[in-house]
Amino acid sequence: MDIATLRKEHPEHWNKAAAIRVLTLDAVAAANSGHSGMPMGMADVATVLFEKHLKFDPKNPLWPDRDRFILSAGHGSMLVYSLLHLTGYEQVTLEQLKNFRQSGALTAGHPENFLLDGVETTTGPLGQGIANSVGFAMAEELQRAQFGKKVVDHYTYVIAGDGCLMEGVSQEAIGIAGRHELSKLIVFWDNNNITIDGTVDLSDRTDQVMRFKASGWHVQEIDGHDPIAIDAAITAAKKSGKPSMIACETHIALGSSAQDTSKGHGALTDATLIANTRTAYGWEHGPFDIPADIKSQWEAMGEKGAAAFAEWQERFASLSGNKQNEFNRAYALEAPKKISAAVKALKKKVSEEQPKVATRKSSELALEVLNPLMWETVGGSADLTGSNNTKTADLGVFSPEDRKGRYVYWGIREHGMASAMNGMALHGGMRPYGGTFMCFTDYARPAMRLAALSKIPTVFVMTHDSIGLGEDGPTHQPVEHLAISRATPNTYVFRPADTVETAEAWEVAFTSKSTPSVLALSRQGLPTVRTEHKNKNMTALGGYVLKDAVAKRQVILMATGSEVSVALEAQELLEAEGIGTRVVSMPCMELFEAQDEAYRKRVLPGGPVRVAIEAGVQMGWDKWLTGERGKANKAGFVGMEGFGASAPAEELFVKYGITAENTVAKVKALLGL
Amino acid sequence: MDIATLRKEHPEHWNKAAAIRVLTLDAVAAANSGHSGMPMGMADVATVLFEKHLKFDPKNPLWPDRDRFILSAGHGSMLVYSLLHLTGYEQVTLEQLKNFRQSGALTAGHPENFLLDGVETTTGPLGQGIANSVGFAMAEELQRAQFGKKVVDHYTYVIAGDGCLMEGVSQEAIGIAGRHELSKLIVFWDNNNITIDGTVDLSDRTDQVMRFKASGWHVQEIDGHDPIAIDAAITAAKKSGKPSMIACETHIALGSSAQDTSKGHGALTDATLIANTRTAYGWEHGPFDIPADIKSQWEAMGEKGAAAFAEWQERFASLSGNKQNEFNRAYALEAPKKISAAVKALKKKVSEEQPKVATRKSSELALEVLNPLMWETVGGSADLTGSNNTKTADLGVFSPEDRKGRYVYWGIREHGMASAMNGMALHGGMRPYGGTFMCFTDYARPAMRLAALSKIPTVFVMTHDSIGLGEDGPTHQPVEHLAISRATPNTYVFRPADTVETAEAWEVAFTSKSTPSVLALSRQGLPTVRTEHKNKNMTALGGYVLKDAVAKRQVILMATGSEVSVALEAQELLEAEGIGTRVVSMPCMELFEAQDEAYRKRVLPGGPVRVAIEAGVQMGWDKWLTGERGKANKAGFVGMEGFGASAPAEELFVKYGITAENTVAKVKALLGL
Repeated sequence: MDIATLRKEHPEHWNKAAAIRVLTLDAVAAANSGHSGMPMGMADVATVLFEKHLKFDPKNPLWPDRDRFILSAGHGSMLVYSLLHLTGYEQVTLEQLKNFRQSGALTAGHPENFLLDGVETTTGPLGQGIANSVGFAMAEELQRAQFGKKVVDHYTYVIAGDGCLMEGVSQEAIGIAGRHELSKLIVFWDNNNITIDGTVDLSDRTDQVMRFKASGWHVQEIDGHDPIAIDAAITAAKKSGKPSMIACETHIALGSSAQDTSKGHGALTDATLIANTRTAYGWEHGPFDIPADIKSQWEAMGEKGAAAFAEWQERFASLSGNKQNEFNRAYALEAPKKISAAVKALKKKVSEEQPKVATRKSSELALEVLNPLMWETVGGSADLTGSNNTKTADLGVFSPEDRKGRYVYWGIREHGMASAMNGMALHGGMRPYGGTFMCFTDYARPAMRLAALSKIPTVFVMTHDSIGLGEDGPTHQPVEHLAISRATPNTYVFRPADTVETAEAWEVAFTSKSTPSVLALSRQGLPTVRTEHKNKNMTALGGYVLKDAVAKRQVILMATGSEVSVALEAQELLEAEGIGTRVVSMPCMELFEAQDEAYRKRVLPGGPVRVAIEAGVQMGWDKWLTGERGKANKAGFVGMEGFGASAPAEELFVKYGITAENTVAKVKALLGL
Repeated sequence: MDIATLRKEHPEHWNKAAAIRVLTLDAVAAANSGHSGMPMGMADVATVLFEKHLKFDPKNPLWPDRDRFILSAGHGSMLVYSLLHLTGYEQVTLEQLKNFRQSGALTAGHPENFLLDGVETTTGPLGQGIANSVGFAMAEELQRAQFGKKVVDHYTYVIAGDGCLMEGVSQEAIGIAGRHELSKLIVFWDNNNITIDGTVDLSDRTDQVMRFKASGWHVQEIDGHDPIAIDAAITAAKKSGKPSMIACETHIALGSSAQDTSKGHGALTDATLIANTRTAYGWEHGPFDIPADIKSQWEAMGEKGAAAFAEWQERFASLSGNKQNEFNRAYALEAPKKISAAVKALKKKVSEEQPKVATRKSSELALEVLNPLMWETVGGSADLTGSNNTKTADLGVFSPEDRKGRYVYWGIREHGMASAMNGMALHGGMRPYGGTFMCFTDYARPAMRLAALSKIPTVFVMTHDSIGLGEDGPTHQPVEHLAISRATPNTYVFRPADTVETAEAWEVAFTSKSTPSVLALSRQGLPTVRTEHKNKNMTALGGYVLKDAVAKRQVILMATGSEVSVALEAQELLEAEGIGTRVVSMPCMELFEAQDEAYRKRVLPGGPVRVAIEAGVQMGWDKWLTGERGKANKAGFVGMEGFGASAPAEELFVKYGITAENTVAKVKALLGL
């Protein structure tokens, strides 16, 4: 449908949609950067969605039962900023639009959920939004099953571009959504046939309709500028009983001289082009000037939400007090108080019984205690359930037949899993965790980074955390992955040494409000090193003295995970020779760094030789070996210098010298003995 | 087709295929680990492929015109080891099979290309093989166009499992192959309906046939145990004119009590199970005992290749001497000698003209010089051609219409691009490079790690390498990605400061034989810092004194990329105050580390205060600040402590204190001034 027809046949709609288009042009021009074409192309879809379908209340933007609107094509951020401004979200003032992409503005280059209510997830890295949305839709199903349709009953709407659909993670998302018949997930594909490099067919000729159908989706094809068709398609999608994809044929940068071109994808800042586009729109108002009548039509859409919200509040109030409390507690990311006592009891039992188990099994023991206390946890694995030990007895299995099932068989889709988990957590009221092999952190990286950036406390259960996995060989043996996760800001990287530390790590992970956790867990059995029970969560300190020197302290050994017992063994050998040795367990460097300097100095005083032991690369350790405060310490590292090899695990530890004997030799060399 | 029918109707075929099956059972039992079910399920397909179709010569395993056989489902490694042993590849002795997965054996848990000829690529991380294969097939097309069908005319065969097809990267690969009509790529899908967690439909109900068709593939469905059907399908696939997927319905762990179960996926080591399976096979020979008649039938398949190879040699000899030399040179990964002079000339020109350009532009300048000298380079970008500056004038564009085109529009598929580039390089005779934003290293990580592990000199062109990209904000601003790549063994991470260093980095990257390179390049313009021409490739030293102290040396500033000019500015300010300051440019830490200690000490002598400046996280720098040799130096770091923000770049550098002024302040504080 061309502009002339739109203006003639749907003048009110046209003006509302034009408001998005000109605000986009104006903000991008003011910023002298950004992406004009996508909001200009998808304004009609967005307008119809917000006017006719989306359940939202700008005055209560975090209303748990709101529909979620996810802009997977995050570069088109002016679309969502325009919508939030026009419908009356307080944060998004006209001033914010004028400061688009400027220092300190809430209107960042790409939408950031932690800056703005109404932005449900941080997008920009393509494919993430559509993959997040699967988690949003699963969370809705889970909570609807748990709390009933009267308090949980909403849709997840997504706008995705060609980029989102070309990214592999979209296939993982499509597959999961199709398998689980997520019928309240509705994806608009901005089918504009343009990417940055040219027309889509330069790089792709996939029949997207057929592709989505192959995974069990309901699919419609419409003119993405025709408001009647858009409305009808959304209505049909809602009734389809399947996840639904609406292919919206649109013109990128509609009405400008850059329409239907790659140029239109980027920043349209040329004054003449903008002026001519305004003319084509019949828009006679100045930059950032939205006439009151148009603005008030937009605000009316927002105001409708107030009544719906009030009705919802009444329905919510009819829930039992306990249900209300549990719902609110989970949405506030407050863990139940009783988990603390439960973790202490587990720790006490373990420190007495001192089992030798793999920390992946320890993790299962902790989850067996925690999952029954927290309805909001959702477990899963990327097809390694028996290896990741992520499934506990009480969870049930999520499926169309059991929407209360809290365990997800994600399939061989680490990336999709991680991204959907982020979506679940962002939806609110859920604490997702999911497992794969530590080495496949690589596959999940884009989502793990976004968890950290977006301040989402997702938990990544990464088992088989070193050469300790043995025969599967270097393709499966992480060596750099601890460093990779530690290099990422706002990420807790736990590598617990035994069941006690593992339980403590889970307690921190499940009480974190804005930091994701990576749990690096062993495949192989490890002895209990925390044999003296302490109520205090020592892992929450990041690092602590596990066993102090008896003889005069000359050495500090630092270690994590499976190498803590190596350190203890080395300590015994050194003490036997009269070399006083302290062992520091360092299950989480980030939390250790967060302690005050006095504590850190007590644990790691200057003077003694320091040796760190970890079956990974050295990077990340130098700071604790010699670097902190620029203080001198003779220091050494026992770990990996390159990739591993395929062989039984015990042989590999000897091959790479990650042994007590080699640690002793290194210490002695540093002491000049 | 069941075993009884197979044995009755195809007894010779059955025995050959059974040899694979029992070798698998025996090797897994001996190792007490591994994956039995997949080789047992796909033995019939492999037998027919090797007997009737695959062009190979075990005596000349690196024959450039051999067909490539890629086991994407790498956990089934005993399939390829059995095939290599049976057909007479010298490396794969019976002893190697008996030592499957043991220390020092060539028969690693997952197939490793750098251990064994006949293993074309390292697989295990799922989806990689099928994505690599796209690169193999593209390389074949490119070389066939370049050298003619008489010397380049071969197929790429892949065995992929459900895991490969669920991984998102497979969708990227399928899309690229379909777009480019890679008709010599034939994928067997091991359709056994089993994953580790259970039946496939637990996690996926995608109609794979429809999915592949949606991307333009030719698809067939067959009984994967029926030798006649297998043969016919391969023949039809070859004639299809499209990339071809053959869905092979198979029984995992065929004939064992674990058939068609998840248990069958893993290691079948139970003696009774193995004995009963042998009985079901009618196999009366002992462990690792392959009767001479069966072995000789297998060897005959290999021997056929000798004649084909000899004929090929004759045809190759008919090429012009120059063509032969160029072909052999590229396959030997020898860069033409003249590139050295060309790089020197560019450096000389630049050091005289001293342009201020972004290093992504510098990279284009270098490529404009190098690409015309090296027919084997293949450029590309994941839909950021104009931003990555990867396309030079002479390349042409790869497509079905122009198979000589050496530039690939990969689409928005960083992972698929990286993995296909690995495949191109592994094919032999190609030097692929490809670009995306540095931040999207995350998407390409699994393939980048495999490049490092597999010793493939792929070049990853990562532009927009810091907060210097400005307004696109933290989703697009790498802060941890230099650390991530540096943490990865066997990876050169270049962050050049100007056009001179960028040209030098390209020279190293394009002469590397077994190490991949990451080029971290700026979006923003940078001044020329190498203003004095040197013939010597200083970047190849990793780090070097760019500008020494004038006053008595009290300070060493180290920096990379865009921060080298910050260091020079700080140096000027410090020297003006009489504080002697050396500036060390450190474009590649890995190459600096590879220098001898004497050189490193000359560049970084003990004593002076050291400050490193880099617009990324500190991790990776501690070693050079204080860590190397455990030597004391007062040290500081000027860089990022968390994620960036959306704002103009210059403002961000000030916001995060990555300035000459802040560097001076840090230095003075360290000096106690």
